[in-house]
Amino acid sequence: MRYDLYYWPMVQGRGEFVRLALEDAGAAYRDVARGANGMARLVRFMGRYARAPFASPYLVAGRLVIGQTANILLYLGPRLGLAPKNEADRLWIHQLNLTIADWLVEAHDVHHPIGSGLYYEEQKREAKRRAADFLAHRLPKFVAYFEDILAKNPARSGWLAGRRASTADLALFQMVAGLRYAFPRAMAKREKKARRVVALHDRVAARAGVAAYLASPRRIPFNQYGIFRHYPELDR
Amino acid sequence: MRYDLYYWPMVQGRGEFVRLALEDAGAAYRDVARGANGMARLVRFMGRYARAPFASPYLVAGRLVIGQTANILLYLGPRLGLAPKNEADRLWIHQLNLTIADWLVEAHDVHHPIGSGLYYEEQKREAKRRAADFLAHRLPKFVAYFEDILAKNPARSGWLAGRRASTADLALFQMVAGLRYAFPRAMAKREKKARRVVALHDRVAARAGVAAYLASPRRIPFNQYGIFRHYPELDR
Repeated sequence: MRYDLYYWPMVQGRGEFVRLALEDAGAAYRDVARGANGMARLVRFMGRYARAPFASPYLVAGRLVIGQTANILLYLGPRLGLAPKNEADRLWIHQLNLTIADWLVEAHDVHHPIGSGLYYEEQKREAKRRAADFLAHRLPKFVAYFEDILAKNPARSGWLAGRRASTADLALFQMVAGLRYAFPRAMAKREKKARRVVALHDRVAARAGVAAYLASPRRIPFNQYGIFRHYPELDR
Repeated sequence: MRYDLYYWPMVQGRGEFVRLALEDAGAAYRDVARGANGMARLVRFMGRYARAPFASPYLVAGRLVIGQTANILLYLGPRLGLAPKNEADRLWIHQLNLTIADWLVEAHDVHHPIGSGLYYEEQKREAKRRAADFLAHRLPKFVAYFEDILAKNPARSGWLAGRRASTADLALFQMVAGLRYAFPRAMAKREKKARRVVALHDRVAARAGVAAYLASPRRIPFNQYGIFRHYPELDR
């Protein structure tokens, strides 16, 4: 199966969670919107389907069109060797991916607390307040949660569940990478109490498929258009 | 199987999406935190599990502990007769539930744009700005999306997918009910262009299990502690 991924071509964003899974597995895929007429195809195709996704990313796999990042990973996981075999374990991995999706919304809303259609500069004052709350309460809570889950995995594998890496491990890597870009000060402090989370990040980065991807031009650098943005005034 | 649902006992909140599915199907379940020592059990149990949920609601089903509302519905759907049989259709229903979950976060953040740990009164000014953006851009977009999905269902059943009701139909009912409570003015206007969404709401409300539930004391009334809150100053 060759997969077609549709997502904004200039940012990592939510699409990155799908790209990482495809790249880790060495899957055959096209990042459609980065090709010729990509943006036009991204937008045009979306409304065409009877089962139209509300937003990108979406994945076209044969006759299937799948939207919602965590849903795409739910579909891809078993096909890419990045999901456990039984239902209970798959629900658990999916639960972790959904928790990461919630975390990601909060990381985004730090710089866009009023509206995603407005510029950051139009909501800078509110962003400062939201950033203070996020860094004081939410970031520590999420990091501590995943540190705890890693500590409690009875397999003691260093992965979130069982003995093998899953889409949730790749997703947690991406959260750490993004938060380091956005909040280097706050993350440096957080990481001191999260050695398992940091170790997981490093292990994912060293996986053959991921390492090759990160070193390639296919990995879009973090920038000020994505979900993770570095505004020094928000990283206090 | 008897299910144990753990969720805050004083609000509908995210737990309501699970309650509606269980009630529609006439499933045997306990709403644990509404019983004796309920709150203590809700909080104590949550951290106890190796596979601890990040937040409530969570469902205990035999030896399984399942968190994340949409994930609970993914698990319950086939068991309650509220999910289609094949994988493609289940992914589609789940995608719709995840889109509703995103919508729900936005409905909540209207009154809590800065931090969920702060009172509304501490973020009232920001809430007014966010409400204006939500009502001008996001609410119309979400309502129009679901109206379009209903129109495009090739089965022309009035349900979101196929010929039978699913967990996503119950969830969309709950969104309409909640938004009517929170934003009666804005919703009255929106509903004029969304007759299929309104019809779906009415059909769900009339289903035997749901109707009995809504008329019972088990249905907690909407109030100013939940996700949907009515502040007239935000409904402009």
